[in-house]
Amino acid sequence: MPIIDLLDYAGVAVFAATGALAASRKQLDIIGFIFLAAVTGIGGGTLRDLILDVPVLWVADPAYILVCALVAVTVFFTAHLFESRYKLLLWLDAVGLAAYCVMGAAKGYAVTGSVTVAIVMGVLTSTFGGILRDMLAGEPSVLMRPEIYVTAALSGAATYTFLAEAGLPVIVATLSGVIVAFIVRGGALKNGWTFKPYRARPGRKPEDIM
Amino acid sequence: MPIIDLLDYAGVAVFAATGALAASRKQLDIIGFIFLAAVTGIGGGTLRDLILDVPVLWVADPAYILVCALVAVTVFFTAHLFESRYKLLLWLDAVGLAAYCVMGAAKGYAVTGSVTVAIVMGVLTSTFGGILRDMLAGEPSVLMRPEIYVTAALSGAATYTFLAEAGLPVIVATLSGVIVAFIVRGGALKNGWTFKPYRARPGRKPEDIM
Amino acid sequence: MPIIDLLDYAGVAVFAATGALAASRKQLDIIGFIFLAAVTGIGGGTLRDLILDVPVLWVADPAYILVCALVAVTVFFTAHLFESRYKLLLWLDAVGLAAYCVMGAAKGYAVTGSVTVAIVMGVLTSTFGGILRDMLAGEPSVLMRPEIYVTAALSGAATYTFLAEAGLPVIVATLSGVIVAFIVRGGALKNGWTFKPYRARPGRKPEDIM
Repeated sequence: MPIIDLLDYAGVAVFAATGALAASRKQLDIIGFIFLAAVTGIGGGTLRDLILDVPVLWVADPAYILVCALVAVTVFFTAHLFESRYKLLLWLDAVGLAAYCVMGAAKGYAVTGSVTVAIVMGVLTSTFGGILRDMLAGEPSVLMRPEIYVTAALSGAATYTFLAEAGLPVIVATLSGVIVAFIVRGGALKNGWTFKPYRARPGRKPEDIM
Repeated sequence: MPIIDLLDYAGVAVFAATGALAASRKQLDIIGFIFLAAVTGIGGGTLRDLILDVPVLWVADPAYILVCALVAVTVFFTAHLFESRYKLLLWLDAVGLAAYCVMGAAKGYAVTGSVTVAIVMGVLTSTFGGILRDMLAGEPSVLMRPEIYVTAALSGAATYTFLAEAGLPVIVATLSGVIVAFIVRGGALKNGWTFKPYRARPGRKPEDIM
Repeated sequence: MPIIDLLDYAGVAVFAATGALAASRKQLDIIGFIFLAAVTGIGGGTLRDLILDVPVLWVADPAYILVCALVAVTVFFTAHLFESRYKLLLWLDAVGLAAYCVMGAAKGYAVTGSVTVAIVMGVLTSTFGGILRDMLAGEPSVLMRPEIYVTAALSGAATYTFLAEAGLPVIVATLSGVIVAFIVRGGALKNGWTFKPYRARPGRKPEDIM
């Protein structure tokens, strides 16, 4: 199996696990675990394939769905073993982000040949599953957390795309992209890395203004 | 008109009514009723057609939009007659779920021939309109309610798909799927059926953890 | 550059600015500004192109992405100059709504030839970016505000479509549509125009009912 396909299954499985962990935090039943795992696992890839107008991954290969279901059932029976499911969720999300930002960029680059489109596709693909997960589970979006997040996806997608554009072998570009993204996001999680945020006052409530 | 087309219009109309009821709970104006009715009515079918890469239902046949508008106007002038609009919304949502999980499975099966894809498409199609409705109206998602919901869609979609795969006439597979889904969801609504939820502690707040 | 293309870039830029303003209200970092600006700027157009099954605007022409990034950076360094960013956001949103409801209707009409589809596409296209922005930023949706909003998009889209159907020159139909939409939404913002809302009681909380 080529490394890109491996990465694809790995990304889906890891994101599915974060969806199942969110389901366990909400104390859903097993079908709720599978639903949230599947939406999180294939959400980003589905958006990517729709935008690129290529066959949607899990329609072309239903094995993706079965991977999500399997992961969800496993999490259902083991999630209580972990001391903090939310920390585990964030770290698995970091792995999924690293895998998926490269996958998204690779597919975007292969289909369009545009560096800009490839990078944007990497960012979209790797963040969308988590957005859906947090929205459906009614949790604050991981994107709005203070530590660096989108930047990690951007770094990984850009690393892959520039190395691929420079003609390096796919395996080098792929691994470099994944590692860069994971170091950036993992470092942010571990050390609380942030950029200087916008400094002025936070927004007032809409109802206090108008 | 073949039974599948009838079911399609019925599903759209019933989901549109739940959107309009949500609008009435939020005291929107008549255009808000139509907007929420249309998004709820055609949301699931739109996602289904995008993923299957077939023409989107209401682009191919704008009558779907007019059905939604008509339903919305009717609800605007009659919603005050009902004692509990939310209960009515949940029961109509159950009817829509039953119609749409079969419709989604039927179209998914017809286009791809895959049992897995057909079942997933049935679940996606029948839950997505309600997800959009609750999100836009700022209500807690019907998916996160304790009683069985996704399972009903899954049962109906699976019933249809296996009977169709077994070679039974379309009308038998269709009616069986719709009835199974409605009995499961209706029973859950009436009797509070739940699966054993995940037993361990609920999730702590993200800000208490990290 | 034809007027329709100009309008397209203008709509994207203005919506991107509202996304960046929302990011400033949430005190995100500069990458968060770019992300929210891009999603808001191209969200509506992406949905439109997916539904119409034409190439997605920013995949066909990545310049749209660069416009969003440029706007986001500009807002990052200037947002503190404005007394009320939320008022500015609402007014820019009104400009974007006016531009995009006509763009959506024009593309919908050109591709399908259906008046109903064109109008619905105008409404969808012009409201979807704002829906995404408010959802991602965790703000109450601009659609749920009491003053007229969807109606403005509907008026502009209908004006364009009927004038185009009547055979008037594109420039007349376009400008009329934009002006009508902006007058309706701007008037609503300035004078608090509302329709008579649905009069009966607001919805009770789901947990108080069942």
